[in-house]
Amino acid sequence: MKILDTAKFTEDGLIPAIAQDAATGEILMMAWMNREALRMTVETKRATYWSRSRSKLWIKGEESGNIQEVHSISIDCDADVILLKIRQVGDAACHTGHRSCFYREVENNGEVLRENSVPLFDPKQVYKK
Amino acid sequence: MKILDTAKFTEDGLIPAIAQDAATGEILMMAWMNREALRMTVETKRATYWSRSRSKLWIKGEESGNIQEVHSISIDCDADVILLKIRQVGDAACHTGHRSCFYREVENNGEVLRENSVPLFDPKQVYKK
Repeated sequence: MKILDTAKFTEDGLIPAIAQDAATGEILMMAWMNREALRMTVETKRATYWSRSRSKLWIKGEESGNIQEVHSISIDCDADVILLKIRQVGDAACHTGHRSCFYREVENNGEVLRENSVPLFDPKQVYKK
Repeated sequence: MKILDTAKFTEDGLIPAIAQDAATGEILMMAWMNREALRMTVETKRATYWSRSRSKLWIKGEESGNIQEVHSISIDCDADVILLKIRQVGDAACHTGHRSCFYREVENNGEVLRENSVPLFDPKQVYKK
């Protein structure tokens, strides 16, 4: 069966997608896809998401140049989560300039550490608004 | 700031949580937490989720014995996804008996391969209903 027929989308028409570094296993981000984003990702092998904040298709890296080349796509047992193994062009996946969006770790007392990595780029230089 | 004050939950009061093998980097599953599940996970260091299908707190492994020992907790840039690095007791995280829920890969033509791994246990033996 085709992935587009297998995948289960939420009532909003979305499915979560995890992007993992294909070489190191590091988890870089989680974002959402609609049906069209999933179709484009499968066909172009370039990670494409649905931006909930901007309500538009979002070819990752279209603005920053930091595209994600898709090496493999998997779907989970319940068919409601997508896993992409990717190569992150430009090294940083996060809009903050960090390599991974998960740059804040939680201490044993529940306190969130501010950052545990150094940004690889300055967002102000990359996203000129 | 505390993780419970930082985390942003959906309108349904949930936040997605990715469970990754702390040693190998393999992504084992993605499930959902409500506030209480996140609190319990932080305090007990045992992964606790909210089961949407059963509408109850779900201490992972409470039935199968395959608990998840939490080594670290991170939160993403938007504070709306949790990442757990864990040790999976009993090796299999998926209710199907597979190590990872992401045992189905998508071929280049978009076809979903049935399975790319062998179950480590027989669900019928583990979940006696």
